[in-house]
Amino acid sequence: MPPVNAPVDVPVALLGYGTVGSAVERLLRENAEEIERATGHRLRVVRALVRDPAKERGAAAAPGLLTDDFAAIRDDPEVAVVAEVMGGVEPAGEYVLELLRAGKPVVSANKQLVARRGAELFATASEAGVQLRFEASVCAAIPVVKVLREALVATHVHRILGIVNGTTNFVLTEMEAGRSYDEALAEAQRLGFAEADPTEDVNGADAAAKMAILATVAFGSRVELREVETTGIERLTEAHVRAARELDAVVRLVGAAELADGRVDVRVRPALVGRRHPLAAVEGAFNAVMLNGDAIRELVLEGPGAGGIETASAVVSDLVSVVGTAGTGFLENDACWRELERLPPEEFRAPFYVQLVVDDRPGVLAEVAAALAAQGVSVARLIQEQGDDEATLHLVTHETAEGALEAALVEIERGPGTRRPPSVLLVVPDRGRPGT
Amino acid sequence: MPPVNAPVDVPVALLGYGTVGSAVERLLRENAEEIERATGHRLRVVRALVRDPAKERGAAAAPGLLTDDFAAIRDDPEVAVVAEVMGGVEPAGEYVLELLRAGKPVVSANKQLVARRGAELFATASEAGVQLRFEASVCAAIPVVKVLREALVATHVHRILGIVNGTTNFVLTEMEAGRSYDEALAEAQRLGFAEADPTEDVNGADAAAKMAILATVAFGSRVELREVETTGIERLTEAHVRAARELDAVVRLVGAAELADGRVDVRVRPALVGRRHPLAAVEGAFNAVMLNGDAIRELVLEGPGAGGIETASAVVSDLVSVVGTAGTGFLENDACWRELERLPPEEFRAPFYVQLVVDDRPGVLAEVAAALAAQGVSVARLIQEQGDDEATLHLVTHETAEGALEAALVEIERGPGTRRPPSVLLVVPDRGRPGT
Repeated sequence: MPPVNAPVDVPVALLGYGTVGSAVERLLRENAEEIERATGHRLRVVRALVRDPAKERGAAAAPGLLTDDFAAIRDDPEVAVVAEVMGGVEPAGEYVLELLRAGKPVVSANKQLVARRGAELFATASEAGVQLRFEASVCAAIPVVKVLREALVATHVHRILGIVNGTTNFVLTEMEAGRSYDEALAEAQRLGFAEADPTEDVNGADAAAKMAILATVAFGSRVELREVETTGIERLTEAHVRAARELDAVVRLVGAAELADGRVDVRVRPALVGRRHPLAAVEGAFNAVMLNGDAIRELVLEGPGAGGIETASAVVSDLVSVVGTAGTGFLENDACWRELERLPPEEFRAPFYVQLVVDDRPGVLAEVAAALAAQGVSVARLIQEQGDDEATLHLVTHETAEGALEAALVEIERGPGTRRPPSVLLVVPDRGRPGT
Repeated sequence: MPPVNAPVDVPVALLGYGTVGSAVERLLRENAEEIERATGHRLRVVRALVRDPAKERGAAAAPGLLTDDFAAIRDDPEVAVVAEVMGGVEPAGEYVLELLRAGKPVVSANKQLVARRGAELFATASEAGVQLRFEASVCAAIPVVKVLREALVATHVHRILGIVNGTTNFVLTEMEAGRSYDEALAEAQRLGFAEADPTEDVNGADAAAKMAILATVAFGSRVELREVETTGIERLTEAHVRAARELDAVVRLVGAAELADGRVDVRVRPALVGRRHPLAAVEGAFNAVMLNGDAIRELVLEGPGAGGIETASAVVSDLVSVVGTAGTGFLENDACWRELERLPPEEFRAPFYVQLVVDDRPGVLAEVAAALAAQGVSVARLIQEQGDDEATLHLVTHETAEGALEAALVEIERGPGTRRPPSVLLVVPDRGRPGT
């Protein structure tokens, strides 16, 4: 894309013309003046790739806009930048690679694509000397990628804590309000937050893809989707929600990425979040990301993490940023510029919550305590809940290595008193009052 | 500044070399690799303007770095960009104007300067075709200016609610924890959040300057500092904090800017903020800004709003952004591109909290209720607190025009039963659960 004295007119092509694609076209059209004021350029969608241009659509397209010919977009010298809003890993991935190789900057809203093939895409963009932006692939309109890549260049972000899946957060806040897991999920589906098949949401896979992208961007080292230790919310029950309340906390599905001593750890886990922690205030279908870095201490970004218009807004922001930086060399580097080691999972340290259902007889508590102590796991809080002939133990440990806790739990399960496999959640404690 | 094939080396000059200036120099030096990776350029401080280069400093400067000769910086063709980190309206303002006219992009951390002379500075930058960035002038490391100007180009932000002064927020959260106003302020001073003379913090002037800048950027129309209706926290007492608790709210000093029907209103006022509102979760010396726009619905940014290194980090982010967009025409527009009307203050509509100390005798409540009703002000909640021979009424109104409420209060004060001038706070209710 020619940078200086570039024509005021910037022709944009879209791959895909569904909810997001048509909203991008509309936002560019309706905000043409604002965009020209900010960039000195007028962005205009000239072509949109669809499978069947003749199909009836909710959003009517201008005559001649739709095409099923990808090569015509790739080879059109007029097209200055392309937004990929078609979804799916293939053929989207091949299309994006071909466009980058053809020297066209690309904006992608495709979480699965960036999470699965990001390293390859970044390297290709870098070789071709064009930008690949992907704000809309993570948390829709929350500008976390822009903030990480542009505002926090000089602050070494070493930790990301996020609520990055709206469906599960909605379900968990509904459970807090007294609904069961099944009721809450059904309500999310009724309101359109959850798909007919909500598997990828509730099992944590959607959150894992977002955390893989954020960790890659923040740490500069490729984090693959399969490396993200992921647990979903399917096994959470009212007992967890009750225990959280008792412990002055709330249950949240938390994505955590950390870089310490040159080693990276990324995980998605249900967690007890202290009630005064900023992530505890994130309710309903909203998302939030907390970033910790040297110079900034802490930054929290919160907003809607999904939605057609919200996603389109992020795509437009990326298009504007591509036009506003073209030719300067900005962000044309390979985002994965180093190889960092992974933290062995058993070395991951945190406080944990453990729920144990045990026989209600003398000696069981002593056995549990002894098994924990044998592994050096120390208990910070214990609540015992009485059932008919069983007892539920809610334990919060001090910070401990997960491997030690797991070893202790294997020992405890082997003993005669345990009724069910223990349930382990992460604990995210209140942080101290800022500036005190 | 030459954009394409620009030398990899970008010489930077600083105006000022105090806490922030020396931290900028250090961040640029320590993060040179990261910055080069992101921008393709190496930023290096070559000159820093100070009053007395011979003075002893906490941060030692490299030989030859310090100068007291402004013209040498302005006229040095090598200097590609200048960061103004000296503070004060003059001579900083004249220096920045001269630099812009000389074709040098400027980054300013100067809240007072941007709030008082922003319109003139923006117009000068626009005429000269260079950028003026000022992220560090508002809320330090929270990238709210970048997000407003770059990420939200296509979303018409129509409302900003912010906690933009850390000192007052610290004082208010300490009062919530049981301290008196005086104790809390003394503690803020002891911890270094509040200046020896905290007047500008507690009277709201500091927050007003930040809100003027944010409103100007968001709405594109100059909002002058003196147009910001400002009330400080000096008259808040434990009674307000108690009432807030009773009403499931917290007391915060809130900046509110709104664009509705083409009219702008900007104010800084102590407010009762519903406990589940995102701003209620902002504790201690932290800042937060909530933005509402068409496409994004709501976005909250929270983080440290002050501090030398945090401010320096924002300056570095601006320097990086200037280099990353140079020559593309990006953000070289005049940020004040339209003239919007002001909302007459009496037409400002909100729910309000009113504290009235009245004689404890029959009929007083009826008089108060009648006066409010006569102005069409309807009461949503009323708590009566019994004193020795007086009663304190805590009223929350439904949304009403401030003019009507004021008229009613004039009437009430005229009556025989009122002991002290009523105290009026804004009310910021809980927002509905996102996505429900």
